[in-house]
Amino acid sequence: MLVGVGPCALGAWPPAEYLFSMKSAPCVLTINGGSSSIRFAVYAGAEASGLRLTGKIERIGLKGAALSVEEVGRGHSVHPSLPLADHASAVAVLMDWLEAQPIFASIEAVGHRVVHGMKRSEPEPVTPKLLAELRRITAYDPEHLPREIALIEAFRRRHPRLPQVACFDTAFHRKMPRVARLLPIPRRYQAQGVERYGFHGLSYAYVLEELTRIAPALARRRVILAHLGNGASLAALHGGQSIDTSMGFTPAAGLMMSTRTGDLDPGVAYYLSHSERMTAARFQRMVNHESGLLGVSGRSSDLRDLLAREASDARAADAIALFCYQTKKWIGAFAAALGGLDALVFTGGIGENAARIRTRICDGLGFLGIKLSEPQNAKTRAVISTKQSRVSVRVIATNEELMIARSVLRCREARRAAR
Amino acid sequence: MLVGVGPCALGAWPPAEYLFSMKSAPCVLTINGGSSSIRFAVYAGAEASGLRLTGKIERIGLKGAALSVEEVGRGHSVHPSLPLADHASAVAVLMDWLEAQPIFASIEAVGHRVVHGMKRSEPEPVTPKLLAELRRITAYDPEHLPREIALIEAFRRRHPRLPQVACFDTAFHRKMPRVARLLPIPRRYQAQGVERYGFHGLSYAYVLEELTRIAPALARRRVILAHLGNGASLAALHGGQSIDTSMGFTPAAGLMMSTRTGDLDPGVAYYLSHSERMTAARFQRMVNHESGLLGVSGRSSDLRDLLAREASDARAADAIALFCYQTKKWIGAFAAALGGLDALVFTGGIGENAARIRTRICDGLGFLGIKLSEPQNAKTRAVISTKQSRVSVRVIATNEELMIARSVLRCREARRAAR
Repeated sequence: MLVGVGPCALGAWPPAEYLFSMKSAPCVLTINGGSSSIRFAVYAGAEASGLRLTGKIERIGLKGAALSVEEVGRGHSVHPSLPLADHASAVAVLMDWLEAQPIFASIEAVGHRVVHGMKRSEPEPVTPKLLAELRRITAYDPEHLPREIALIEAFRRRHPRLPQVACFDTAFHRKMPRVARLLPIPRRYQAQGVERYGFHGLSYAYVLEELTRIAPALARRRVILAHLGNGASLAALHGGQSIDTSMGFTPAAGLMMSTRTGDLDPGVAYYLSHSERMTAARFQRMVNHESGLLGVSGRSSDLRDLLAREASDARAADAIALFCYQTKKWIGAFAAALGGLDALVFTGGIGENAARIRTRICDGLGFLGIKLSEPQNAKTRAVISTKQSRVSVRVIATNEELMIARSVLRCREARRAAR
Repeated sequence: MLVGVGPCALGAWPPAEYLFSMKSAPCVLTINGGSSSIRFAVYAGAEASGLRLTGKIERIGLKGAALSVEEVGRGHSVHPSLPLADHASAVAVLMDWLEAQPIFASIEAVGHRVVHGMKRSEPEPVTPKLLAELRRITAYDPEHLPREIALIEAFRRRHPRLPQVACFDTAFHRKMPRVARLLPIPRRYQAQGVERYGFHGLSYAYVLEELTRIAPALARRRVILAHLGNGASLAALHGGQSIDTSMGFTPAAGLMMSTRTGDLDPGVAYYLSHSERMTAARFQRMVNHESGLLGVSGRSSDLRDLLAREASDARAADAIALFCYQTKKWIGAFAAALGGLDALVFTGGIGENAARIRTRICDGLGFLGIKLSEPQNAKTRAVISTKQSRVSVRVIATNEELMIARSVLRCREARRAAR
């Protein structure tokens, strides 16, 4: 069995009309709805080679919003001038476009990335009960959950017989030890579900499956996965299980990110409420959208922009330095949690592409047994550590969409096996 | 020259009537005003052997408030039934008591622990200008600064010619590299002074001076000092300089403590404002006074109580586990910041006394070169690592009062040298 994401929770499987009836190479539509974008893909089967198309709607509500699609064997197309003034319009545009495609008829299930799944450790078929619960917990992640729910509901309305599966970004971490789930706040909040969940689970699950395929023994040892993208987090794995991760109750926690603070001195909240009468809603906006690389640089949330300015702009240089420094400290912290380190894997937009950032993160970590091969790193090879390095340092491109497709297909298999 | 706290800032030295005119073994009164207690001591000279008396007023505003004093050579005395209903009354009681003591005539200067000193890296004589600035920044630490200011003002009123020196808990960290001072929030706040300061500086300065006395070469290598008491923080030192510390803009940051959260997922603030309309002031109280060991255990903020209950109380066990786990992760993080580790020093009430906690923190840190000698640790020897341990693990009892006295006397020396 593949690791990471297991079969789905069978108990909540929907009634007969929702049952999968897929053919030999069924197509799965994957939907990954972010705060200002929607990414989607169609896969025939559970392997990367089954990709049929991939697309995204970006800059929703902003100038230049567009739908762009890459169809395998047919090339790239961009559809500007669509009505994309808000998320609801974008959902309608997406559905209209999808329904007009010939491949739509062969889609036999939809898999959604859902950022928060409470205590669920497996993907789960969408039912009215699940939707009701997701609605109930939107305050846990007001940045993402309402939009994900809107996408699920749109498909239910237009295609009520199309099975949908919710794939939770929290599921990967649900078996973390008790100590990693605790928040240092009054215990009564735990009963309300306020504890550490962790996110980026679909990415981690995919990367772990890849690492297991390439180096199965290593994948079960002491591993740190560093998902460094616009959202950024790290996870510590032992025996193929997440034992800790840097994000917590919400995805604003942990490492600083492109626009999020990560963990913060709680005294800052009181100071700002006092010094400039900042409301909680304003604080939430600041820590999610105006901080991190953007906040420190005062310039850009995009690490590529900052790298281009680094030599001439001290604030851009500060933002990069802080990001690398914090990542290095998280690696040290998780090595301590693991009692040492055997593998470090970089993934995500920054992790996969920014060789200079990988160098700076690993600089000074020789005491952990990390020795980067600069030629290998500069070329972004699969293994970027030297032969002498005690820790195997690697780059694995993540693929959350494929992980969603796999999760949906495993749900079907589990369902069949249970019949 | 001793390390840690240098001569005071000469530029701000007060006019002639404030000048020191101390005799050969001048007495210094030290004042350490906490949120519900005031500790004080009288030292003749800059060594521990010069201690003349030490005392404290505890439980201010609570039942059982009392002044207790330990006079060297004369024993212990407790003065209950004093009017200690609030901090102002406690200050008056303290001054009345002090003025009635024969030793008061030989006190030639007062040194105050002041929790926040903005960008100051040295102790500083109290002047109207300094007081005005401290008043201006009370929002930085509303828990401590107003009470410290009240103590300084009380002495100025009653004894205007008695020199006072403010010894800042932030000063030790003011030479931290730029990257360690940055907060991942919008840059405009840095101009308001919202950056990482770090605290426990008097304790760290004292412990570093002790380590320098005992093992001067080691003290200049890669050192982590772990001040674990009711307030708890760690500092990373290289070349005898603080390069990073776990507390930040306020003392609520970093490691979880007896009642403080330490660094927190900022999304928790928004969730609580939403789910139970928690105000900023209520949040501030929660993160400072109802969290940490107390919050997680739901039982006690005192680690000794929790250790006594650990076997029978799962929440007490959780609180202890989280405290040890977080401390372990901070050690890993700072080892990464330092590029490896040569010495780890425990201090503070927990650090100096709780051998079981030291064991649990160090458990699994063999990969850093830490090897604890259990017999040495159980007896709380000065060195608690084995002879084979690459990292020298030590226990040093801190003495903030003596550090204040030293700081005051060095101010005088610097003043004399500058004449």
